[in-house]
Amino acid sequence: MRVVTGIGAVAATVAATACLTFAHPAVAQDVKPDRAIKYRQSVLRAMDYNMDILEAMVKGETPPNKEVAAQSALFVEQLSHMPWSGFGPGTDQGAPTKARPEIWKDPEKFKSLQNDLMAATAKLAASAKSGDVAQWKGDFSAVADACRNCHRSFRAR
Amino acid sequence: MRVVTGIGAVAATVAATACLTFAHPAVAQDVKPDRAIKYRQSVLRAMDYNMDILEAMVKGETPPNKEVAAQSALFVEQLSHMPWSGFGPGTDQGAPTKARPEIWKDPEKFKSLQNDLMAATAKLAASAKSGDVAQWKGDFSAVADACRNCHRSFRAR
Repeated sequence: MRVVTGIGAVAATVAATACLTFAHPAVAQDVKPDRAIKYRQSVLRAMDYNMDILEAMVKGETPPNKEVAAQSALFVEQLSHMPWSGFGPGTDQGAPTKARPEIWKDPEKFKSLQNDLMAATAKLAASAKSGDVAQWKGDFSAVADACRNCHRSFRAR
Repeated sequence: MRVVTGIGAVAATVAATACLTFAHPAVAQDVKPDRAIKYRQSVLRAMDYNMDILEAMVKGETPPNKEVAAQSALFVEQLSHMPWSGFGPGTDQGAPTKARPEIWKDPEKFKSLQNDLMAATAKLAASAKSGDVAQWKGDFSAVADACRNCHRSFRAR
């Protein structure tokens, strides 16, 4: 677990000694909200693209391919760690976004679902790398469920 | 080096036994060009966002922060492996893009500059993780140079 060092000069001192909601270090203090919003959307879109590659194999629309599956799953895992720094204070608005206000009202739950997602993507990356198709197809479904769970609570329709 | 397994059913057979241009497995066969274009743009934007966090520290606009620097540099390294599957055949058009046709005319050079970028981001991730500020600031400049080199040849103004 990295030491979280805070959001903003004042918060930095408090956060340095307290356990913050987000498991990852906060974004730099002077990031404009619109950039943060577009960043997190970029990461989530990239994750979706790689999930689609895997889904096509799961559905039998494309032939199974161990290297492509392993790579896509690895990218999904890596990407799943990246959006969270884009959800800092003040990023509920500034650009079109489906992020619901609940994200900032219930940060504990938001963090919990982030952790669920990252745990699921880690399993998928491992099983896709191993080449166990039945296993990674199951792990793929678990990741898709984790995405849905978070969206159900925190993304507007 | 992963075995590259091809783009499209016909290419798959050829590619399985040949050394393809791209060091990473190709994208799934049925990806629409507009989605591939938006995917690669999403990845490059996410890379840019994390580079900005590092640049702000290099310029002294934000205080040095080892955890944030290490995380951003790691993300830049991971992201630097991801865009390439979005540059497959037929993705020169389909959505607004600054990707120049030279990408598909000179794939050897494009691949070479990709490799330069990935080597540079790996060094940056390692030095940022170590906390050697002088070292990672130099490595940051090398990554910025690698971005510019590729853009000079392959991105329209």
